[in-house]
Amino acid sequence: MTAQVAPAIDSALAGKIANTLRFLSADGVQKANSGHPGLPMGCADIATVLLTRFLNIDPEDDKWMNRDRFVLSAGHGSMLLYSMLYMQGFLTLEDLQNFRQHSSRTPGHPEYGDTPGVDMTAGPLGAGFAAATGMALGERILGEMYNTPKYEVVEHFTYVLMSDGCNMEGISQEAASFAGHLKLGRLIAFYDDNEISIEGATDLTFTEDVNARYESLGWHVQDIDGHDHEAIAEAITAAQKERTRPSLIVCHTTIGKGAPNLAGSAESHGAPLGEEELLAAKKNLGWPEEMFHVPAEVAAYCETRREQWKEGRAKWNSEFAAYEKAHKTLAKDLVRAVNGELPKQWKHALPEFDADVTDATRSLGGKVMNAFGEVIPELVGGSADLAPSTKTIITTGKYPDFIEPEMYLGRNIHFGVREHAMGNIVNGLALHGGFIPFGSTFMVFHDYMRAAVRLSAIMKLRTVWVYTHDSIFVGEDGPTHQPVEHLAALRSIPRLDVFRPCDGNETAYAWQFALAKADGPTALALSRQKLPTLDRSKYAPAKDALKGAYILDDEEEGGAEILLIASGSEVHLAVAVTEVLREAGRTVRVVSVPSLDVFKRQSEGYRKRVLPKRIKRRAVIEAGIVQGWEGIIGDNGVFVGMDDFGHSGPCQTLAEQYGFTVEGVIDRLAEADF
Amino acid sequence: MTAQVAPAIDSALAGKIANTLRFLSADGVQKANSGHPGLPMGCADIATVLLTRFLNIDPEDDKWMNRDRFVLSAGHGSMLLYSMLYMQGFLTLEDLQNFRQHSSRTPGHPEYGDTPGVDMTAGPLGAGFAAATGMALGERILGEMYNTPKYEVVEHFTYVLMSDGCNMEGISQEAASFAGHLKLGRLIAFYDDNEISIEGATDLTFTEDVNARYESLGWHVQDIDGHDHEAIAEAITAAQKERTRPSLIVCHTTIGKGAPNLAGSAESHGAPLGEEELLAAKKNLGWPEEMFHVPAEVAAYCETRREQWKEGRAKWNSEFAAYEKAHKTLAKDLVRAVNGELPKQWKHALPEFDADVTDATRSLGGKVMNAFGEVIPELVGGSADLAPSTKTIITTGKYPDFIEPEMYLGRNIHFGVREHAMGNIVNGLALHGGFIPFGSTFMVFHDYMRAAVRLSAIMKLRTVWVYTHDSIFVGEDGPTHQPVEHLAALRSIPRLDVFRPCDGNETAYAWQFALAKADGPTALALSRQKLPTLDRSKYAPAKDALKGAYILDDEEEGGAEILLIASGSEVHLAVAVTEVLREAGRTVRVVSVPSLDVFKRQSEGYRKRVLPKRIKRRAVIEAGIVQGWEGIIGDNGVFVGMDDFGHSGPCQTLAEQYGFTVEGVIDRLAEADF
Repeated sequence: MTAQVAPAIDSALAGKIANTLRFLSADGVQKANSGHPGLPMGCADIATVLLTRFLNIDPEDDKWMNRDRFVLSAGHGSMLLYSMLYMQGFLTLEDLQNFRQHSSRTPGHPEYGDTPGVDMTAGPLGAGFAAATGMALGERILGEMYNTPKYEVVEHFTYVLMSDGCNMEGISQEAASFAGHLKLGRLIAFYDDNEISIEGATDLTFTEDVNARYESLGWHVQDIDGHDHEAIAEAITAAQKERTRPSLIVCHTTIGKGAPNLAGSAESHGAPLGEEELLAAKKNLGWPEEMFHVPAEVAAYCETRREQWKEGRAKWNSEFAAYEKAHKTLAKDLVRAVNGELPKQWKHALPEFDADVTDATRSLGGKVMNAFGEVIPELVGGSADLAPSTKTIITTGKYPDFIEPEMYLGRNIHFGVREHAMGNIVNGLALHGGFIPFGSTFMVFHDYMRAAVRLSAIMKLRTVWVYTHDSIFVGEDGPTHQPVEHLAALRSIPRLDVFRPCDGNETAYAWQFALAKADGPTALALSRQKLPTLDRSKYAPAKDALKGAYILDDEEEGGAEILLIASGSEVHLAVAVTEVLREAGRTVRVVSVPSLDVFKRQSEGYRKRVLPKRIKRRAVIEAGIVQGWEGIIGDNGVFVGMDDFGHSGPCQTLAEQYGFTVEGVIDRLAEADF
Repeated sequence: MTAQVAPAIDSALAGKIANTLRFLSADGVQKANSGHPGLPMGCADIATVLLTRFLNIDPEDDKWMNRDRFVLSAGHGSMLLYSMLYMQGFLTLEDLQNFRQHSSRTPGHPEYGDTPGVDMTAGPLGAGFAAATGMALGERILGEMYNTPKYEVVEHFTYVLMSDGCNMEGISQEAASFAGHLKLGRLIAFYDDNEISIEGATDLTFTEDVNARYESLGWHVQDIDGHDHEAIAEAITAAQKERTRPSLIVCHTTIGKGAPNLAGSAESHGAPLGEEELLAAKKNLGWPEEMFHVPAEVAAYCETRREQWKEGRAKWNSEFAAYEKAHKTLAKDLVRAVNGELPKQWKHALPEFDADVTDATRSLGGKVMNAFGEVIPELVGGSADLAPSTKTIITTGKYPDFIEPEMYLGRNIHFGVREHAMGNIVNGLALHGGFIPFGSTFMVFHDYMRAAVRLSAIMKLRTVWVYTHDSIFVGEDGPTHQPVEHLAALRSIPRLDVFRPCDGNETAYAWQFALAKADGPTALALSRQKLPTLDRSKYAPAKDALKGAYILDDEEEGGAEILLIASGSEVHLAVAVTEVLREAGRTVRVVSVPSLDVFKRQSEGYRKRVLPKRIKRRAVIEAGIVQGWEGIIGDNGVFVGMDDFGHSGPCQTLAEQYGFTVEGVIDRLAEADF
């Protein structure tokens, strides 16, 4: 199946469609008295050509796996997207009239999940461009996994509209370099080169030669008048034909085009035109004054276009039916993966580690992901040039290891030292469908990609963030490489669950949790240093990790007077301290907290059972800051952790320095009169 | 004063110096049994030429304001820098032998403040390059502020050594685009193009044409053999002569050069060579086996070179003495600013806002910074293309408003939509000395620049981060633009103090705090929406904001039964709730918490006075997540805040939706049996 291209429409009609998009957008902003009319008015011509001739969608199924993707990376221009979705049939005029109102389907920026037909939550500049790169990569991987010589059931384009702002953001550079390297020929980016940013003309600070830059990155670059429909169509056609280089179509546009006084100025960017200027713009373009006006011939054309789209979908459906018949297993697996269902009995792959294993949870995590990766082919991802250290290479399963330019069959992606782009490329894979993607780096470099992780949480994407080297026990690399505040910072992101397992078996359940969680991201915090494996014949089963926190060890009769609470590597310290305390005749309960987030969502009854109110002598041990633990520690408790950045030095020296030793903890408990 | 260039030295001696740097580095890593030998061995020739001929420093004063700056952006190659500092006289052989040990002067990555002669804490890739851009800009601004036609007392180069990893990071693109735009001709970057990254050959993922990219950004690009001393010297000379474009010297090097088996491979990057390979390398290059060997002629040469440097400094000193005589006030002000001392009586500029003022704290913040900016010329900064919204333009004082290419006199910088680079350019200005720099954007975009803010905290830099649009009350722009977890995430960074003032007067003291804080950064969280000004004749003085938290309003007799604790915009809600509660006969104390961080550092006595243990009915009201407040709320308290992302909608609708209304809070208190 090759991409459908609709015949060109009459230019007068095309002009009317463009003005319909233009004024629906400007009217929406005006009615909301808030929003950005400049981009929609400037890009209405690009949208018109894309919509009328190239974009393949199903107006009755916005989740169709083979639809073209369209990401509005410059998300502030949301009214343009909403106006396009109105023409596609996904939104009503009433939706457009409710722009930016609470609970409407037309929020201020496009929100994935809130609006049918929106392929991504966009607004943070550059994020959409990087995610589009991920979608274009996903299309290729999925195509190579599931297409056959006869049936190309996955074969679509990914379009993205980006702004000056997107291009100034470093993430777009990272993603463009990555896309150029991988020769993602089905990625087509429109650059709305309107020469205006919020502080004024872009040449106040942005004078680079963008075209030459993209050429240096291996892109196919075209430079056109963004208001010339023929030029736009020709450029898209050429971009579609170019299959070994991603395409940048630099569209010279006038921001706020049509507004007689504000067009071409920063004033049209981020505020309503005002009633007077809006009327003047309508007069200027020969448009009726009526708000949200849709000419009858435009409405009629949209009906026709929707019929074309439905025919396209029907054609794909019949091809897919034949494919299903010919390749039953393949088709079933593709549908399963795209629907986000895991293979039956995938949990049987859960590995178990014996008590004689001593290894870092990063290494054991690598084993876990390989065990699951063998039965879950959609588990695909990579590291920001740290795979040998984060141990996140999948070598199991039937596919090759590494994805390469023009050889997209594989499980592992070399993201390069591009954490921020990695974050949104992973998001793009998840958004595309067919993948449970992961991205990995040292935990401290979460800071480089935090904005992308936040987006994955807002969009409720099933992404897995593997952060290794999870504490000061990184050691010699020093404070720039030692996370201290990162557990707290990760836990602060709503909808993201953070797991910090204490051994291989908790790591296995943490991965199981992450893979099963269909409505949001999970972050794994794994150790650099080696850790023992708890003997589960003596301690509670590791499966309890799924509850977030659990009683690892307790007095036989219950009624312990001291509560030791720890996560990750510090659980073993808590266990060692317990032995000493018990020898001294004290009674102790040890609680392992692999996920504070998950624990906080458990029933009040369970939480109280694990951490009974009556035990006031509580110590939390975690090699990070206290933030987030205060409620558990209570007024009489003790926190053994960090309150400043660490230092360079060997792991053991640091443990002694910061009190993460049996003696250190015992001293702290004594100080607190435990 | 123009830059001193030393005559070329004998090539045999130069080769010995290079090998000394090479093996001091490899030996240091070997002895520590941890570290990165590859870069130092590969870049020893570049370092040799720079050190022997071009770098101007004072071996007895590593804070000399007119020294050349040298930033090792690829900070993992720290042993190269330490070996250079040994030759400069700042470190001893013993220091080199203590590499990566706790409390040594030679930590795993260069740490500003821990080691004399280290111009920046580096390690997070790309950060050093962006900070070097800031230093080069700082040199120009300071030069234009303080040099006179006759005396160029500020006139030096900024050198930076960057890696493939630095170039893959988006931040380097942002900074390079910025530097190219501003024509920072005194910035000279060496790109260690060794074609190796951690996952293997760089062409696994990095195949862009870096040279063409930098050319597209307006840079002067040279491409040389990084082991050819003559070529290096010629390139530096050409780079120095080019004064309107920053220079990139692409140095083709062999990573781990000299190691017979590991040179040119990823294995030499991040682990000791091993004793065998190290010995083989020494044999290969005709070097004695002895660890930390320094040939006598190299030691002698270093003496000579140090004399040259001292002469250079003496020459500058006498020029400066003449300058001081001719321009007494100017010289005094320069020295004052470089020493980080504020002008006398600067606090008199503190503005006061009357109770009839109703405005957003972002707008009032703009007035405050202009008031202080008038008397503090070193207050310089800008916004990431949001200045009209963050209100951070300084128009007071005697200098022009905006800095422009080749016209560096000014107070405001157009950073462009480049938050991450902005963060480290601001750090670079602070590191250069002579500035109290600020950077500004919407609070939610802190996520883009978090790594830079962390670095400013690690380095204890006096930087000010102005984050406006500080809550869901951003409104219509929706969840991508509404901070929810950001106050918690900011507060989690050690050494960073976050202020969220409730009105103009608290904002004034927050700025005063930030300007006075010489040992670390401050972040200001300012509102988008308008807020009333508290009538300080009725409430406690705003100056109490300096304590972090204070009793704003209390029962006359004391003994309140309910404690309402709030920050920022929610303080006014707490005040309104108090009125209703008092009408109902309840007794209430209101505590304003502009800075939870600062409050937590107050004496226990003060903290207990403000939040007495006896009052268990406590409600914290803050339009963010609970994290960080649990200890204050206690077991019986209530938190009125957010526990998920917000939604797009008008501010007032959101307030009602999320319970930030008098009725909403009263209901919550009733539910908790207050």
